[in-house]
Amino acid sequence: MTHSFNPPVRVLMGPGPSDVHPRILEAMSRPTIGHLDPEFIRMMDEVKTMLQYAFQTNNVLTMPVSAPGSAGMETCFVNLVEPGDEVIVCRNGVFGSRMLENVTRSGGKAIMVDDAWGKAIAPQKLEDALKANPNAKIVAFVHAETSTGALSDAKTLCEIAHQHNCLTIVDSVTSLGGVELRVDDWGIDAIYSGTQKCLSCTPGLSPVSFSEAALETIKSRKTPVQSWFLDLNLVMGYWGENAKRSYHHTAPVNALYALHEALVMLQDEGLENAWQRHARHHQALRAGLEAMGICFIVDEADRLPQLNAVAIPDGVDDAAVRARLLREFGLEIGAGLGEMAGKIWRIGLMGAACSQRNVILCLSALETVLGISGGIAAAAEQYKP
Amino acid sequence: MTHSFNPPVRVLMGPGPSDVHPRILEAMSRPTIGHLDPEFIRMMDEVKTMLQYAFQTNNVLTMPVSAPGSAGMETCFVNLVEPGDEVIVCRNGVFGSRMLENVTRSGGKAIMVDDAWGKAIAPQKLEDALKANPNAKIVAFVHAETSTGALSDAKTLCEIAHQHNCLTIVDSVTSLGGVELRVDDWGIDAIYSGTQKCLSCTPGLSPVSFSEAALETIKSRKTPVQSWFLDLNLVMGYWGENAKRSYHHTAPVNALYALHEALVMLQDEGLENAWQRHARHHQALRAGLEAMGICFIVDEADRLPQLNAVAIPDGVDDAAVRARLLREFGLEIGAGLGEMAGKIWRIGLMGAACSQRNVILCLSALETVLGISGGIAAAAEQYKP
Repeated sequence: MTHSFNPPVRVLMGPGPSDVHPRILEAMSRPTIGHLDPEFIRMMDEVKTMLQYAFQTNNVLTMPVSAPGSAGMETCFVNLVEPGDEVIVCRNGVFGSRMLENVTRSGGKAIMVDDAWGKAIAPQKLEDALKANPNAKIVAFVHAETSTGALSDAKTLCEIAHQHNCLTIVDSVTSLGGVELRVDDWGIDAIYSGTQKCLSCTPGLSPVSFSEAALETIKSRKTPVQSWFLDLNLVMGYWGENAKRSYHHTAPVNALYALHEALVMLQDEGLENAWQRHARHHQALRAGLEAMGICFIVDEADRLPQLNAVAIPDGVDDAAVRARLLREFGLEIGAGLGEMAGKIWRIGLMGAACSQRNVILCLSALETVLGISGGIAAAAEQYKP
Repeated sequence: MTHSFNPPVRVLMGPGPSDVHPRILEAMSRPTIGHLDPEFIRMMDEVKTMLQYAFQTNNVLTMPVSAPGSAGMETCFVNLVEPGDEVIVCRNGVFGSRMLENVTRSGGKAIMVDDAWGKAIAPQKLEDALKANPNAKIVAFVHAETSTGALSDAKTLCEIAHQHNCLTIVDSVTSLGGVELRVDDWGIDAIYSGTQKCLSCTPGLSPVSFSEAALETIKSRKTPVQSWFLDLNLVMGYWGENAKRSYHHTAPVNALYALHEALVMLQDEGLENAWQRHARHHQALRAGLEAMGICFIVDEADRLPQLNAVAIPDGVDDAAVRARLLREFGLEIGAGLGEMAGKIWRIGLMGAACSQRNVILCLSALETVLGISGGIAAAAEQYKP
């Protein structure tokens, strides 16, 4: 016989999920109501409005996809790419490759613009690619590469894309709520994110937003969207403006309660305050790690505060250290992904996990397990008033 | 400013979601851990084993898709159908049409076998279609049509399909846990369900299972699966037997806690006991409704106990009655869907919502709102020892 599952209590400082605030967990456990209930539909409207705030957009089609971030990515590509379309994909980590997969499987032709892992995307390379490929219809890139901790200049990349009459698809899975992100000001046409990073919500939903230009492109497609589940022409009947809220699929009711609560908390803190909090604790963690001789793999100007990618010190057993952190401290940090596996750790400071308490815990645990000191003192210095 | 959302407490007797047991809601609110945490991976194994029990299968690839039932349906079609494949779709309600959409969008050629809404699928029609289409590769049908409350004979339909060397795709969204369903004994090759019906879990996940023959078909595809998110060749790296549990997408951790708890409860009750419970309360509800002069639209032999589709009495205002039930009794029953809209109500008795208390509440509420008596007494008669 199988018994109820009682998870251990962890501190989640990996690449996500991040620590979920008890308020959000509690909201998730409120009584389930129907996905067509008038009260539920009122809550959906609030979720949309608060997502518009989080994304800094007035886009009417701003909503959570009923599945994880990977499905949010697929929503953007299958709706915007038609067979034969040329899509420029800037790649500087794992998720650029996943974009390539999405373009290909949608029947599009991907033109890859590669930068080294750990580097920001070079605007000049995008400019060159656009000049060399005048028929390109879309430019796609990752704002905050979760596999490397590098932040790219989304504003500049979008400007260049628009100068060449391209739509933009932006991955903000790790950036939303953690660093500056302005969908309307920067001219992002399609964007997807996840709930389990800087929103500190449970994993499972993918907030997305589409500009008027993106919607026009979707509405004037020559071919049907290959996915029924992700076809925005259909989903809009449930989530769209002035929609009849007609049944498309059964919404994940309780997961949406959780997202609603996470967004209330973001609104209460204030978006810019949240960005500043991520920056502040990153500076303290950084000071501590560097004092311990642990080096960042991303240039200072391009570092994500919420995802600290550092080189594993020479001679240190990656898996053994992470296992001890988990066993002795209940602390999860992230392993490397793809070509970074075994070479780096990814230390998250996302959402509710981004706190002074966690910075000190993480440094203390690393000092103990690695047998190096000096980290806590250096971080404490940063917190002095 | 938007405030926290406090849902009203409803009794969910529509077509799903059904009432979620407090144990399941509480499980969902346990602390989030990482999707690669060793403890989480142990829990995933338990979920798989308990889903095998619920589906009555030894299929190695038995797992929950990280999205609602509609995505489970799409998982079956996009993985098994290749461009040009002929797929026979038996249609006797809304969800047969959705299967047609899935076949077409996967590049397949759908051959429709239609039965009237509210009728079970006629095996002879399937037999005739298979004889007329010797190149058909797959037969797809809905076991329990959520739009009409009709149950089809999945065992016989699968036998016929296999006699013609076809794979079978079966929709068990509403049947799993509510009526007899035996994946291995009946020879079902691909099946999908939902968590929010007779498992009484929160909506958002889709349990699926695939036979060895289905897996072979997927592994030997000539073309890539068009969906990256739903490509089982990739998903198996995380959920498959002896898989490395390598990252594919971030699993919806807390939703899986809830499903785990729902399956522990099913295991504790016993699958056949759950089937019998659904049948018993259906008989009482039926006696009550018929005593009130309310008629079922499905022939007695084909009725789903967990979804009672009844004709709206003449002269009764559909929307006004449902609104009063919701407002005065906190009771949700389902409207008609598709061509049944405005003609029928769908009264669910699913999972935790399938109880004597709810049967009596529903009849009492309907007696009050419709001004008809006799229902409660007739149901009480059924409950006499």
